[in-house]
Amino acid sequence: MNDAGTTFLAALEARLPPDTLRAPEPRHLSEPRGKFPGRAAAVALPRSAAEVSTILAACHAARVAVVPVGGGTGLVGGQVMTDGPLPLLLSTERMTAIRAVHPSENVLVAEAGAILADVQAAAEGAGRLFPLSLASEGSARIGGLLSTNAGGLNVLRYGTARELCLGVEAVLADGSVMNGLRRLRKDNTGYDLRHLLIGAEGTLGIITAASLKLLPRPAAYATAILTVPHPEAALALLGRAGAHAPGLVEAFELISGESLRFLAETMPDLRRPVPKAEWLVLMELGLPPGLDGTALLEAIFADGAERGLVEDGVLAQSEAQRQDIWTLRESIPEANRRIGAIASHDVALPLSHVATFIEEAAAALRPFGIRINCFGHLGDGNLHFNVFPAAGRVRGDYADAAADITRIVHDLVAAHEGSFSAEHGVGRLKVADLERYGDPVKLAAMRAIKAALDPHGILNPGAVLRM
Amino acid sequence: MNDAGTTFLAALEARLPPDTLRAPEPRHLSEPRGKFPGRAAAVALPRSAAEVSTILAACHAARVAVVPVGGGTGLVGGQVMTDGPLPLLLSTERMTAIRAVHPSENVLVAEAGAILADVQAAAEGAGRLFPLSLASEGSARIGGLLSTNAGGLNVLRYGTARELCLGVEAVLADGSVMNGLRRLRKDNTGYDLRHLLIGAEGTLGIITAASLKLLPRPAAYATAILTVPHPEAALALLGRAGAHAPGLVEAFELISGESLRFLAETMPDLRRPVPKAEWLVLMELGLPPGLDGTALLEAIFADGAERGLVEDGVLAQSEAQRQDIWTLRESIPEANRRIGAIASHDVALPLSHVATFIEEAAAALRPFGIRINCFGHLGDGNLHFNVFPAAGRVRGDYADAAADITRIVHDLVAAHEGSFSAEHGVGRLKVADLERYGDPVKLAAMRAIKAALDPHGILNPGAVLRM
Repeated sequence: MNDAGTTFLAALEARLPPDTLRAPEPRHLSEPRGKFPGRAAAVALPRSAAEVSTILAACHAARVAVVPVGGGTGLVGGQVMTDGPLPLLLSTERMTAIRAVHPSENVLVAEAGAILADVQAAAEGAGRLFPLSLASEGSARIGGLLSTNAGGLNVLRYGTARELCLGVEAVLADGSVMNGLRRLRKDNTGYDLRHLLIGAEGTLGIITAASLKLLPRPAAYATAILTVPHPEAALALLGRAGAHAPGLVEAFELISGESLRFLAETMPDLRRPVPKAEWLVLMELGLPPGLDGTALLEAIFADGAERGLVEDGVLAQSEAQRQDIWTLRESIPEANRRIGAIASHDVALPLSHVATFIEEAAAALRPFGIRINCFGHLGDGNLHFNVFPAAGRVRGDYADAAADITRIVHDLVAAHEGSFSAEHGVGRLKVADLERYGDPVKLAAMRAIKAALDPHGILNPGAVLRM
Repeated sequence: MNDAGTTFLAALEARLPPDTLRAPEPRHLSEPRGKFPGRAAAVALPRSAAEVSTILAACHAARVAVVPVGGGTGLVGGQVMTDGPLPLLLSTERMTAIRAVHPSENVLVAEAGAILADVQAAAEGAGRLFPLSLASEGSARIGGLLSTNAGGLNVLRYGTARELCLGVEAVLADGSVMNGLRRLRKDNTGYDLRHLLIGAEGTLGIITAASLKLLPRPAAYATAILTVPHPEAALALLGRAGAHAPGLVEAFELISGESLRFLAETMPDLRRPVPKAEWLVLMELGLPPGLDGTALLEAIFADGAERGLVEDGVLAQSEAQRQDIWTLRESIPEANRRIGAIASHDVALPLSHVATFIEEAAAALRPFGIRINCFGHLGDGNLHFNVFPAAGRVRGDYADAAADITRIVHDLVAAHEGSFSAEHGVGRLKVADLERYGDPVKLAAMRAIKAALDPHGILNPGAVLRM
């Protein structure tokens, strides 16, 4: 592997339209948690798959590393290369077109640089729903969302990014362009390379466009925040909600008492329309016409209360109240940021192990003298199990303990047949975790596939798999 | 590649429990359409992934071909090898355990040889739904259903087999066992080999077990058969149904007048509770508690009638009537078999191209003097576009025309950005179609992956990719 040196860049520049290569800006070299200081020789800003092809073919021939950059919101350092040969960045920021909306097919075709909020808006403009929804939707781009198989708030009903993608156009390591932009619900014609590229974090190819599933918009939403005695009760309540409203539960989010205290401490002016409790769930139903959402929530509440699964609650009586509830939920990551985590974990567990895991992990970490804010997408078994300094102490006090804390949490996750990365991916942060916890046969197969599709290893080196 | 000769088989036999290797039975060497006469040296009947591992490791070392066999219901010859070195068959018929049902997680873990109907029953026994449903569900096995990414009747709401699988245990070509039997809704820890193996038709590994998604059972179904003026109206009606019942339409099947005539001719005693028409749709809604299905169907009908999309219809008033409607639909393939098709096509189209495709294909084939029975999963854009002799003529009269007919149909499908195999797969029947219509970059990547994961090419040689 070679640096993206001046001779290489000059030759590449001559093959591209003017102003395609630039000096990287700080935003191209950083990531939200500031753990990975990026470095690069230049950033390429292609306008089309053909230009991406020119760039990759040149990098492939010259053994130059390429790091794909989307909205830059990823939390595991997949978008920044901190060591090794000096890479070329490839940003999708100029490929933002929504190429087509097909309401009668429930399909939208977007380029990789399209911002999620713009895709959501285009779907809404056509009377449809693109259900992928997450805190960074105002800056995250479709290519990155697919490459990391993003999750978020509505996975419970609609699946992750993977499940919302019908096809991809992608450029492979040697510059060849795979046209897989099909708009079909069924297509059994050979290996599903779409699903191989989705979640590969730019290490097997660069997604340049995607055809995405749209859905009918629910006629109304019914939203509540409920206090529960413990997480196990919350999960039993989810089961009851599924019986009352099969297929209609869109979100089932866990909020902890610590979440509320962090919000009170860091954002005292935020409306917190919820009872005080150690455990709460935010439940939202997406309703067809003709179902009374309030009655349905009340029935779930009554059923849950009778079984001791729910104690108190607030049902949103207006869209404004619904937005207050969601703002509360979506402010938790910012509150966490202001408190300053020692270690953050994005874990998934089989649903029946979630409650035990939370208890065991809290007990195992107690000796460290920490606070835990455990929240997240409970309906998916996906917890953001984040660890903070005790009140009055600071992150720096725990510098020596952070790695041990993460090891304890991830070992416990593995013991419960869980995942050390539910929705954030591997990036550069969790390469060692993948080596430690991943199935060795799967890892060997991944390496074989990587070598087959990117024989010179130019695509996002060091992400997912060690260089 | 070598024959599975007597020396090889004797050595393998010594490493396996008694009675694991046998002479193949006729059922192991045939497929439903009788197009591919199979041949094999022996059939292995392993009881576990460990035994599958022993078998594949031996075949890998000796360069002996292995053909995986499930329920044998595949329609494209994926389960029979007609030429090349004499292979060993590997049947999953002894690996039928449902290892676990986790109702609180909505997960079921089944071995590859479990029959679909048994999995459905186990789900129902736990108060849950496993929604994969197709005509051969009484004999099709989970391993084959996943390896071919089976579709069927409820894809519109629940997706294909792929979307219903959370994880797989699989044995790779060299005998290594990949344990991917996770029960997680989110797991972004490296390349998604599950989705690579699903739909690979046993050419990249042999799935030995899978964790499957269960769903809440709808509280009730509302089912109707409706006559429509033409397929375009049917698709517009589907859009209206989505507005009235977002997310609740489980099935939207096209039935042609020819379907009804074939049924009348071949099964005169079958109840046909439907008005005569040239085009009909079977629509089924899966309802949450509290929604009146009859009122909902009537509202969709009234809306559609006002727009000229629907002309007449029968709403099932009882479970018996519902079953009559479904029996009618599910008898069409048997009626086709009795009439005797010249050529069958399992195609998918973007929804907005379906109606035009049907017209253009019928016009293009008219000079052949044939009958067309076009039916199938209209809501998925998946048509079974099957071509039959004119009344009074027989299949043999068209022997010279069959290939031309298929070429015309598939060329037209390709022109409409469709797929020549929506749900049946490639097998051995459609290898040339994949070469003709497949994206060349995708094909090259498929070959690279095949060579990386199965370097000696022992797994199902000749299926999907040419040997």
